Amino acid sequence: MLAELEAFARIGSTGAGGVCRLAGDAADGEARDLLRGLFVEAGADVVVDPVGNMFGIFRLSEAGETAVLAGSHLDSQPTGGRFDGTYGVLAALAAARALKESGASFRHDLVVCNWTNEEGARFTPSLTGSSVFAGTLPAGTALALSDASGATLGQALAAIGYAGSGRLAHRPVHAVEIHIEQGPRLEEAGAQVGLVEAAWAARKICIAFEGEPSHTGPTAMAMRRDALHAAARAICLLHDWGEIFGQGVHWSCARLENAPNSANVVAETCKLWIEVRHPAADICRFFGDAFLLRLGEITRPGGAGFRIVSDAMRPPENLSGEGCDLAERICGEGGISSLRLDTVAGHDALALAAAMPSSLFFVPSAGGISHSPREWTSEPDLLTGADFLTALVGKLLGKP
Amino acid sequence: MLAELEAFARIGSTGAGGVCRLAGDAADGEARDLLRGLFVEAGADVVVDPVGNMFGIFRLSEAGETAVLAGSHLDSQPTGGRFDGTYGVLAALAAARALKESGASFRHDLVVCNWTNEEGARFTPSLTGSSVFAGTLPAGTALALSDASGATLGQALAAIGYAGSGRLAHRPVHAVEIHIEQGPRLEEAGAQVGLVEAAWAARKICIAFEGEPSHTGPTAMAMRRDALHAAARAICLLHDWGEIFGQGVHWSCARLENAPNSANVVAETCKLWIEVRHPAADICRFFGDAFLLRLGEITRPGGAGFRIVSDAMRPPENLSGEGCDLAERICGEGGISSLRLDTVAGHDALALAAAMPSSLFFVPSAGGISHSPREWTSEPDLLTGADFLTALVGKLLGKP
Repeated sequence: MLAELEAFARIGSTGAGGVCRLAGDAADGEARDLLRGLFVEAGADVVVDPVGNMFGIFRLSEAGETAVLAGSHLDSQPTGGRFDGTYGVLAALAAARALKESGASFRHDLVVCNWTNEEGARFTPSLTGSSVFAGTLPAGTALALSDASGATLGQALAAIGYAGSGRLAHRPVHAVEIHIEQGPRLEEAGAQVGLVEAAWAARKICIAFEGEPSHTGPTAMAMRRDALHAAARAICLLHDWGEIFGQGVHWSCARLENAPNSANVVAETCKLWIEVRHPAADICRFFGDAFLLRLGEITRPGGAGFRIVSDAMRPPENLSGEGCDLAERICGEGGISSLRLDTVAGHDALALAAAMPSSLFFVPSAGGISHSPREWTSEPDLLTGADFLTALVGKLLGKP
Repeated sequence: MLAELEAFARIGSTGAGGVCRLAGDAADGEARDLLRGLFVEAGADVVVDPVGNMFGIFRLSEAGETAVLAGSHLDSQPTGGRFDGTYGVLAALAAARALKESGASFRHDLVVCNWTNEEGARFTPSLTGSSVFAGTLPAGTALALSDASGATLGQALAAIGYAGSGRLAHRPVHAVEIHIEQGPRLEEAGAQVGLVEAAWAARKICIAFEGEPSHTGPTAMAMRRDALHAAARAICLLHDWGEIFGQGVHWSCARLENAPNSANVVAETCKLWIEVRHPAADICRFFGDAFLLRLGEITRPGGAGFRIVSDAMRPPENLSGEGCDLAERICGEGGISSLRLDTVAGHDALALAAAMPSSLFFVPSAGGISHSPREWTSEPDLLTGADFLTALVGKLLGKP
């Protein structure tokens, strides 16, 4: 598994220890080809569905009708690290190999999964493939999502040969994902495995500021309707508001599209993507509402106006309580230190939880850093996590 | 001339009355082809120089050694209007036709000019072709300028067939440009022609904020080094500072490049392009220095840092005093109301002023709006300006 992690880290490498594999790009295609080869080599049947989700089917049961799903994603952020997603796919594959080689027979088959566009960096929203599989996002909507250049997810998948026509025939009984933590709590607690009980709610708001293009030189200052100035005020307001009132809330604005974005034209439109996260959906609503209300107040008369392009809540999600209890027993028996916690970030396991019992586990990540080339998990932690996952999946597969 | 303005407005039309013809793009090529045809039809010899400057040579003198240059530019901003630049080229062409058809002979030839990349929207810096002609920018440097996609000006000109090999053999004795005002002063004063005495100085600063990429969800708020937040604070500081202390100064920030610009990655780098304009260079220096000093103070410990990528002064420029006096006499004799003023925006005539006596004139622009589809000058004002230019150029061409 460690050698395989190295091999995947070379695909879309950004040269600084990081990777850039945006959903449906050439590097994603190359990573998928490598995974398909590993599936075949391990004796799995490979199915690719219409939104590009990849399934490696390990037939470990007599009936072959039900399955445990284990996996994560191979796509990354533009400034991605080598573990985010890839580790979960490869740890699941390692578990599948070990359980197949054990010669034991089980009640369910095991399906190793690579979910399409988990990151949402190229196509918004994120968790695309797992949401389609869970039935919360129509496949047609997913395939029609377009990137900044206007290419659709459907076109991107076709271009790399992963617009599949297959369907997973098994009925899933449980989904499992292991992932790097993307936070510092395991490292701080000295724990080896995180047992995720619940996910924070998130509110995602896209706001468009609308000004008036004019020459940045001669136009009288008082006549300018400057969309970028208004957007900058909104970003500062968000952070000022958060720093004063946002104890326990995580807020961010990390994406901005300014047009025409020429130094000599007062900005005509400027779009901001704002996110607010908290364990309680009500707090996300409250924080976002207060921000929008205050934003309306500070928008200056005669200046740029704004409209809300989209405003969506991702509800908090509970993961399987039985999964957590089982995982805690396995850790206890194996001498693995564990910690119950929640997740702030989105994960495929959360999207799948809408349709089946779902479990999410973390391994420690140095300094809690992710979406960065500096993302790092030690080899012993990676191996402990994979051993834990193998034991857990073995239990979930059940006796015949 | 009015019909020709209509024809050019259709090339690169943005559908809302505006045009988008970035230097060296397909629409720029189409506009250049149309101008070349008009030159030939009017009996001019056509020369294209290595940086794509186009010269339509009207041989009106015996000796054919010296020339008056008259023209402007056909390129536009992404949100350009139909008059900015194009009017100056077509008014000069109309003047050349009228003077040729008058049958009179003159001391100098007349050269109608289309200068390359006046706007600087695609390739920075602006005033590229006129600066090369004036000897203040090496041609090799100009041709190596690259756009956001990495294409060079040289490549772009070659792609549209305007990487010329010609050279204007004449010695220029005076350069003349007529342009829409891009400000409201003529309209407010009810004057028909603006006689530009001087240009404001400008300071152009590019600043890069440098943060640290990490996940916008789980990363602890106190650990974030957010380049976009720092940039937003800088934009607000610029405007706050300007509104309090900037009486008489024009300042702007209209271009921003944020990376990786993904909603789920704290911004790693964010570049801002800031401009400060005032008649006096010292005030531009003072305003910029004070802003940068204060920016250093508000950069928060542990937050994103910044570095100055570039910081350039465009000095104030005086236009020809004799040109202004002559123009004022012509207006007086022709019953044309005129106003002496200065220009905040850059113009080819300012770049040419470094190498020869140069004159710049304005016609009124409704509401002072430019770099916008809403840019508008009435037909009577356009025709008055063209008649004025014909009379002025006739005087500048002199008696044999």
